[in-house]
Amino acid sequence: MRIGRHTWRFANQPVIIGTSTVVGPEEGKGPLAADFDFVHEDLDLKEPSWEKAERKLLEQASQLAIVNANITQDDLDYFVGGDLMNQIISNSFAARGLGVPYIGVFGACSTSMEALALGSLLVDSGNANFVMAGTCSHNCSVEKQFRYPTEYGSQKPPTAQYTVTGAGVAIVGKKGNGPKVTAATIGKIVDLGIKDPFNMGAAMAPAAVDTIQTHLTDLKRSPAYYDMIVTGDLSTVGYGIAKDLFKKHDINIQTTNYQDCGLMMYDMVKQKQDVQAGGSGAACSAVVTYGHILKRMRQGELKKVMIVATGALMSPLSYQQGESIPCIAHAVTIEMGGDES
Amino acid sequence: MRIGRHTWRFANQPVIIGTSTVVGPEEGKGPLAADFDFVHEDLDLKEPSWEKAERKLLEQASQLAIVNANITQDDLDYFVGGDLMNQIISNSFAARGLGVPYIGVFGACSTSMEALALGSLLVDSGNANFVMAGTCSHNCSVEKQFRYPTEYGSQKPPTAQYTVTGAGVAIVGKKGNGPKVTAATIGKIVDLGIKDPFNMGAAMAPAAVDTIQTHLTDLKRSPAYYDMIVTGDLSTVGYGIAKDLFKKHDINIQTTNYQDCGLMMYDMVKQKQDVQAGGSGAACSAVVTYGHILKRMRQGELKKVMIVATGALMSPLSYQQGESIPCIAHAVTIEMGGDES
Repeated sequence: MRIGRHTWRFANQPVIIGTSTVVGPEEGKGPLAADFDFVHEDLDLKEPSWEKAERKLLEQASQLAIVNANITQDDLDYFVGGDLMNQIISNSFAARGLGVPYIGVFGACSTSMEALALGSLLVDSGNANFVMAGTCSHNCSVEKQFRYPTEYGSQKPPTAQYTVTGAGVAIVGKKGNGPKVTAATIGKIVDLGIKDPFNMGAAMAPAAVDTIQTHLTDLKRSPAYYDMIVTGDLSTVGYGIAKDLFKKHDINIQTTNYQDCGLMMYDMVKQKQDVQAGGSGAACSAVVTYGHILKRMRQGELKKVMIVATGALMSPLSYQQGESIPCIAHAVTIEMGGDES
Repeated sequence: MRIGRHTWRFANQPVIIGTSTVVGPEEGKGPLAADFDFVHEDLDLKEPSWEKAERKLLEQASQLAIVNANITQDDLDYFVGGDLMNQIISNSFAARGLGVPYIGVFGACSTSMEALALGSLLVDSGNANFVMAGTCSHNCSVEKQFRYPTEYGSQKPPTAQYTVTGAGVAIVGKKGNGPKVTAATIGKIVDLGIKDPFNMGAAMAPAAVDTIQTHLTDLKRSPAYYDMIVTGDLSTVGYGIAKDLFKKHDINIQTTNYQDCGLMMYDMVKQKQDVQAGGSGAACSAVVTYGHILKRMRQGELKKVMIVATGALMSPLSYQQGESIPCIAHAVTIEMGGDES
């Protein structure tokens, strides 16, 4: 159903019948550790390269999600996924192992919700019974590809963000008792001219606010409809900017109802986890949503949630050629008991 | 509608209301030159880098498609696109200029039909009135990124393929007199262990045959249903392998009805265009389909066509780490007058 112009409202309300999350050691020290299915103690996962370690995160998460959803690999109609690696190799190689028709997507750190939105559309439109949506990132493979060789241990400014090592996967089906995917708002590119790849939060915040505003306008809703609105990985800098932009655009979001996955992921105060401004990476919103938030929903603590995954769509080369950072945010709403409005 | 398991049959039969193709100088010397909307005489398009030249191809094709479809930029609900560049920057930066909600996809050279399939799904499911699906590639940006610095002019084996410089865009709408998108079959990864990035055709051919077989099985059709079945960019080596595999799998395709965009693109016999085994690149199937094939359909020469875009989903890094090439093919069927079966 076409509601407003950029929001899909899923009439058949597909259900998230199973999820899984696999993370690395730093994530296992954070406040959400107990919510993840599997915490690796080492960063290399006993693989010979960071890229193969990243792929393994996703392969493990995929297998766990199939078990958690209580289906078999053969039941899956499609796998929708992408990641930050050049040519999204982590997902494509994981898809090879799954043997399921594969729709590769790229939205940088917004990939989690882009994949969930498309997967839900496939089920909602009657074109699939079961779709897997997944993404992953690895601190060392991303550091190596986007910035400097990991072994340099290069210093970072406090506005930089720490790429989450992890993989998050959701399986969407036609029916079940789980949380329902009720709508998705597809973002457009917002680029206010920021060129600093060590300040992604500032670059991405306007895209997040734009998508939230579009969503609320399309569905004629106030932010209070949701128990929680969560951005993907704006972290300290972007979170503050987003709050300022909400005020500027008269979007009345209670601070207690607005959170950011990049800030929820690590404990930068008591434990002083050394993650600069907070978490980022394609896995950030995926593991926080599929691990922590959905768990709170299943326990009855949250009923209506909007996840707004944010992505910075530059490449090291576009940065080197003097380009600013085009950003995007895709929102998906998840509701226990569905949307009865 | 879920038909078979991996084929979407579009009940509302979305219409390709406009297309456009912009190509480079080598493509302008080939046999299809007259079918393209715009032929550039230089490879750099007066841009300071190959990447910016590639982006310009897509920006121009997007603007031309909007004119050809007789709509305005504001009418577009979504842009679905991707390309071969790391982090699909050509499409993301072009999307910034369009200001339209953007769904980034990656399927290497299968991106053209992946984007058209998803765009058609959005219109068919009632979630959009107008969707633009596009892709692009540039011989020099791809050469530089995947192989050696362009300026080296490195020698290539005869199995190598020549990346098409061009951009192809289609706009899908709800109704109109144009060719209709009637179905799409999403491929799964097929990887028979080929590791040579200078022999993509051999790597991709089994994926193309797998998707064609799935499509025909899902829709209970014989190949004779189609006036033409066209693979994306298998070129000389892959085309021969595909024909062998058709025989092996008892897929009865008349050789006269089976063609390949990589072979149609250039004249390797009379004109002796120096393109090794033939054309490739994300733009290859896009410009041949949206330029040449749709023109023949509109002129009444072809009624029912299946385009099977093929993609090699490796990266230079996965190759360096000793991995084989995971391949995929996505098929879209286009029919004048629609599917009346």
